[in-house]
Amino acid sequence: MSAPETLEGWFALHDIRRLDRARWQTLPSAERGRAIAEIVDLLERMSSDPGSGHTVAYLIVGHKADLLLFHLRSEVGELRRLEEAFDRTTLAAFTTRPYSFLSVVEISRHAAPEGGAETIADTPYVQTRLYPEIPAHDGFVCFYPMSKRRGPWDNWYTLTSDERAALMRAHGRTGRRYSGRVTQIVTGAIGLDDWEWGVTLFADDPLVFKKLVYEMRFDEVSARFAEFGPFHVGERIRPDDLKAWLDV
Amino acid sequence: MSAPETLEGWFALHDIRRLDRARWQTLPSAERGRAIAEIVDLLERMSSDPGSGHTVAYLIVGHKADLLLFHLRSEVGELRRLEEAFDRTTLAAFTTRPYSFLSVVEISRHAAPEGGAETIADTPYVQTRLYPEIPAHDGFVCFYPMSKRRGPWDNWYTLTSDERAALMRAHGRTGRRYSGRVTQIVTGAIGLDDWEWGVTLFADDPLVFKKLVYEMRFDEVSARFAEFGPFHVGERIRPDDLKAWLDV
Amino acid sequence: MSAPETLEGWFALHDIRRLDRARWQTLPSAERGRAIAEIVDLLERMSSDPGSGHTVAYLIVGHKADLLLFHLRSEVGELRRLEEAFDRTTLAAFTTRPYSFLSVVEISRHAAPEGGAETIADTPYVQTRLYPEIPAHDGFVCFYPMSKRRGPWDNWYTLTSDERAALMRAHGRTGRRYSGRVTQIVTGAIGLDDWEWGVTLFADDPLVFKKLVYEMRFDEVSARFAEFGPFHVGERIRPDDLKAWLDV
Amino acid sequence: MSAPETLEGWFALHDIRRLDRARWQTLPSAERGRAIAEIVDLLERMSSDPGSGHTVAYLIVGHKADLLLFHLRSEVGELRRLEEAFDRTTLAAFTTRPYSFLSVVEISRHAAPEGGAETIADTPYVQTRLYPEIPAHDGFVCFYPMSKRRGPWDNWYTLTSDERAALMRAHGRTGRRYSGRVTQIVTGAIGLDDWEWGVTLFADDPLVFKKLVYEMRFDEVSARFAEFGPFHVGERIRPDDLKAWLDV
Amino acid sequence: MSAPETLEGWFALHDIRRLDRARWQTLPSAERGRAIAEIVDLLERMSSDPGSGHTVAYLIVGHKADLLLFHLRSEVGELRRLEEAFDRTTLAAFTTRPYSFLSVVEISRHAAPEGGAETIADTPYVQTRLYPEIPAHDGFVCFYPMSKRRGPWDNWYTLTSDERAALMRAHGRTGRRYSGRVTQIVTGAIGLDDWEWGVTLFADDPLVFKKLVYEMRFDEVSARFAEFGPFHVGERIRPDDLKAWLDV
Repeated sequence: MSAPETLEGWFALHDIRRLDRARWQTLPSAERGRAIAEIVDLLERMSSDPGSGHTVAYLIVGHKADLLLFHLRSEVGELRRLEEAFDRTTLAAFTTRPYSFLSVVEISRHAAPEGGAETIADTPYVQTRLYPEIPAHDGFVCFYPMSKRRGPWDNWYTLTSDERAALMRAHGRTGRRYSGRVTQIVTGAIGLDDWEWGVTLFADDPLVFKKLVYEMRFDEVSARFAEFGPFHVGERIRPDDLKAWLDV
Repeated sequence: MSAPETLEGWFALHDIRRLDRARWQTLPSAERGRAIAEIVDLLERMSSDPGSGHTVAYLIVGHKADLLLFHLRSEVGELRRLEEAFDRTTLAAFTTRPYSFLSVVEISRHAAPEGGAETIADTPYVQTRLYPEIPAHDGFVCFYPMSKRRGPWDNWYTLTSDERAALMRAHGRTGRRYSGRVTQIVTGAIGLDDWEWGVTLFADDPLVFKKLVYEMRFDEVSARFAEFGPFHVGERIRPDDLKAWLDV
Repeated sequence: MSAPETLEGWFALHDIRRLDRARWQTLPSAERGRAIAEIVDLLERMSSDPGSGHTVAYLIVGHKADLLLFHLRSEVGELRRLEEAFDRTTLAAFTTRPYSFLSVVEISRHAAPEGGAETIADTPYVQTRLYPEIPAHDGFVCFYPMSKRRGPWDNWYTLTSDERAALMRAHGRTGRRYSGRVTQIVTGAIGLDDWEWGVTLFADDPLVFKKLVYEMRFDEVSARFAEFGPFHVGERIRPDDLKAWLDV
Repeated sequence: MSAPETLEGWFALHDIRRLDRARWQTLPSAERGRAIAEIVDLLERMSSDPGSGHTVAYLIVGHKADLLLFHLRSEVGELRRLEEAFDRTTLAAFTTRPYSFLSVVEISRHAAPEGGAETIADTPYVQTRLYPEIPAHDGFVCFYPMSKRRGPWDNWYTLTSDERAALMRAHGRTGRRYSGRVTQIVTGAIGLDDWEWGVTLFADDPLVFKKLVYEMRFDEVSARFAEFGPFHVGERIRPDDLKAWLDV
Repeated sequence: MSAPETLEGWFALHDIRRLDRARWQTLPSAERGRAIAEIVDLLERMSSDPGSGHTVAYLIVGHKADLLLFHLRSEVGELRRLEEAFDRTTLAAFTTRPYSFLSVVEISRHAAPEGGAETIADTPYVQTRLYPEIPAHDGFVCFYPMSKRRGPWDNWYTLTSDERAALMRAHGRTGRRYSGRVTQIVTGAIGLDDWEWGVTLFADDPLVFKKLVYEMRFDEVSARFAEFGPFHVGERIRPDDLKAWLDV
């Protein structure tokens, strides 16, 4: 079997932090004020240069984590420096890292217009998908990693490319019924992290995550081949609103 | 396969905490008194507005946790603010979070009366199930998450909708034999958390949990398709009774 | 398939603790003396009322834990209050809880004499099994939780009740060959904890645990259907002997 | 299926510790000196009475652990007292216990000479295997627990005893090709710990562990039936050499 | 089945550390300066003697770890002393060890030129592969452990040696298409660590890891037989550049 051709864009790091609010609240007020200013400033600088990538932040619901920083950049080294920059802040001393995910924006060659590979990668449509905008509205994120099953009966990697393409096309049709209500960034993580792909969904109404993922689970490609990692649901937070969240 | 139609009501957060009683007992008596008043007051406010949701608390048996707050609200953002409000209390500094579960009250379209979807959702029966009361008597809770199997032989998501409906009807008949002794709230978590559903049972006699779940395990739908997460059993506690529980 | 009829007796809590001896040894001698007296007194009171239940203690071998308190009581709420009573001691501040197990003494209807269910539960034989004595001799305990497999080929819950009964009868014959050398309490945990049953064995010679469980593993019911959780082996300790164990 | 007859000798405890060297190094020099003398003295006493058992120590390579104490004794209670004796030392306060394994030296009845069971157990050959010496040379240890598979196709416990014996004989032939380069102690743990057996290998050259275990993996009994737990590789350390290892 | 013949070279230790930067930053500046000098000096000495092995360091991306030291040496005892040397530094007190991997450089006899085993091991080609150089350019590493499946259908260890050789040859052809863009060191870990092999890839562009591992996943040997452990991706760091990374 030959591997499907893919095009890759920005590298992505889902940098997930848990806040020890109890210890944070013991920080003297003046120090805490400086620490808040420092982190707001850092997030604003991280978020400010859309040409070379994006950084957006979410407050995660539930015990798994508190803060998700979603970074898109051209180089893995840049992503590493962004996490190091966070680690150097005062706030970081009050956080731990329960999870992270390193991957790269990926689109299938089939999803791109016909033409030579070089040419295609340069079309505006493909460029927009490889170097995507983060939806600008206030809203919610749903992030989960996944892999394709390699079992003795249902083995994604021993299907023919025609079988794989047909399954993915049907899956795409389900997704398109949610067009306008949800935005999706798929990132590839094979060789970079423990799961094979990351799926990052954006919507104003988190019920849409449930409706979409539930409906997709009945697609043959999910029913027979998908294995899912942990789901993280979060609410968008602007750098400036971190002040209220971190205030005592 | 097309996904079954579902109706959704309140979002649910099972917010589960472990108390470090040893450290808590070292808190000076006056501070502890203020902290108890603060948490009792918070829980009373959380519990007081049934029109817009519910919050009830349980003391969990065993090492997994000590306290379960079960929140039902209209918006995921509200649930997030409820956990943040708890995190901001003095008591929270003496707790950790071993588990949580984000989901949404769900009923199957089949379980609702016939008619157009809009109309149905507005019937009192359906409204009562989507926006349920928490049983008022003192008693016990049993909460566990679960998923439906997607294996090469027993795969829930490749059954026909008739097969699924028949299996669920038989399951429902088992449940109805326990009518009056146990109340059940089923919440959907696909796209929101790691398991696909949450089951929250309420009963005065915890032996009923054992009898019901044991009997249901012989239903074909459980025997062949169910995968179960951790079980949490707890005893209802009123906000005011937290005083005795937290007292030294 | 209909579920087998079962009779239930006392609820059981295996309350398992790990001692941080290093920190414990730093406690000033007078305080430690008071803490020892307090825990000895608590265990004596827990152990003293055989009519309404039992509490026995074991020192666990290996890294998994140090102390197992095995409680049998009529109500889940009582078990919760027993663990809370332990948590309120000074010793508890030097322990953590790596594991616990909530279940209820269970015997199969088949294992009871013939007759109407009400009548049966009241026979002395059944009463003795539902509300068992803990063997009085000094000795060892082996506790492990287990479940029955629900796989696509070997699925306990899709067997006929005749098949299940035949498999359990053969298993019982293996067990009876160890009569007099080992005592067994089986507790059901479906709907109460993560595994379906708990098995608690008592013997003077721990080699008997190995011989019995090894031999049983070749019974068809174990070979094809059993899944085992963690094994805990411990040595009985009387409340009064805790003094030496806790002494520095 | 009837279980194979086995003979049992010493009980075994693999007591595995991790050293917090950073905290250890903060201990004042005089206290550290006393603590080193205490642990060296304890290990010398544990090691000194070969008639009633053995204790040998190894420094583990990698993050899993630092120190392995391998104890062989006649009684489980003795093993428990040995770990308690370690826990009571000053050094223990600077260690944690990532793993342990409780088992009993086991040889198959087939591996013993013909004759009545009583007689056999008393032959010098069998006595030597049930109450083995630890190889005296300086060298390496490899310890791993394992179980036999009980799957729907490959199920060790539903084979006939002839099939099991044939598979074990072939496995033994592979082992004998390494005679003189490696010594092996097999211990049974069914009913005592979470895996069914422990394998403890001794060799001067750790490459032999790789060669032997790799070759054995192609034996049908390993290829089809073996499930392996964590591997621990360590270098022998004499009580007296602990001084250098623990010195700052 | 007989095991494939292999040749072994250096032993390898992937020593992986997480830095507690928050605590590190609290170290007084003069002490921190001395600690940095100490670790830089240690890494320089570890790296300086290519004849007897290599040590290279990488900064890991994501929450799994911060620092990977990849050691190649002739003896397991040397590797143990290298980790002990690190543990004795001041920096080590600010690190924990989330993972490590002990293995030995391995090449298949088939991959070597024809001839007697003794002769072959001495050819320059084989020597270069058994005692490899670490690529000198600045760049990235990708390390992951893996095993071959031993399931009831797809069981690597019950294939004939011809089947195994054919599958590995096809896999090698995929790898060779990446020649010049990626360097690979395969190490065997059976009998030494929990996974069977380690794969360590070196490249200037980390996208190559994704492309190579993705393409290889469609090779029959990966699709049907490979099981993968955690992936670690890191950026090369020279001893001298640790100063900037550790500076506050």
